[in-house]
Amino acid sequence: MEEKVLKAIQDEYPDDFAWCYGCGRLNEEGHHFRTGWNGEQTVTIYQPEAKHAALPGFVYGGVMASLIDCHGTGSASLALHRKNGHEPGDGAEPPRFVTASLKVDFMKPTPQNIPLKAVGTIQEIHPKKWKVETEVFAGDTLCARGEVVAVVMPSTFLVKE
Amino acid sequence: MEEKVLKAIQDEYPDDFAWCYGCGRLNEEGHHFRTGWNGEQTVTIYQPEAKHAALPGFVYGGVMASLIDCHGTGSASLALHRKNGHEPGDGAEPPRFVTASLKVDFMKPTPQNIPLKAVGTIQEIHPKKWKVETEVFAGDTLCARGEVVAVVMPSTFLVKE
Repeated sequence: MEEKVLKAIQDEYPDDFAWCYGCGRLNEEGHHFRTGWNGEQTVTIYQPEAKHAALPGFVYGGVMASLIDCHGTGSASLALHRKNGHEPGDGAEPPRFVTASLKVDFMKPTPQNIPLKAVGTIQEIHPKKWKVETEVFAGDTLCARGEVVAVVMPSTFLVKE
Repeated sequence: MEEKVLKAIQDEYPDDFAWCYGCGRLNEEGHHFRTGWNGEQTVTIYQPEAKHAALPGFVYGGVMASLIDCHGTGSASLALHRKNGHEPGDGAEPPRFVTASLKVDFMKPTPQNIPLKAVGTIQEIHPKKWKVETEVFAGDTLCARGEVVAVVMPSTFLVKE
């Protein structure tokens, strides 16, 4: 059975914020990471393409880092949105986060031929700053652990919009 | 004056190891990061493409992480190669590293319109394990700091070759 994220926070971002190479639905050449709730945890499911190799057969670490990055900011957005009384799909515009720091521990070589599943556990460390701990699985194998500290998007990002 | 890395370690990897989405010269759709010496430090110069955005005008964090990742493994390869008496271009095959851990602190939004310069400082922490601390500049602006722990490629990566 194929697992799928039905209601993703990235589907709710305004068009101006939907161009991210990782998770922007409008970036035709991007990864299109989509992150939703699974109980109190968050999930992003992603099938790497052949080009996303480190060596043939194994996923490139930068793509793993990208998955963990957007899964982190998406999870933080989901969490603050829920704290504000909203769920993806209810029509409210979600808060947008940026990454303050990103950490990845690579545990095992990640096979390229099966979907990856990032599972996030979220902690509020400040009203505008959330920590997301992520485990990335290929099937039952834990391939990487990640930690993202995400902050509500500062106004410096909006000047150029 | 355009800065350029003339002798890059990635140019010396055997063809079987030149498919990395980050730094593989044979991966047509990859970033083609190229890392060389600048005195005792290492340098990778990279011009992000328009698609590599977080928001229009700013570089995606996953691409910054990718740059730091391959700059890290490339720097470790350069360093062990030099320890073994070799420099890129002398015909010897360099050692190949994989990333054990990757950490990125995002300091400033990174503008998309100028080349990025990653500058690495390398430390041997074990004959097979090297730490690379990297600063990524856009012009004079320090946009991100990274740390990679790179290890000599284990045999588990070679089984599928």
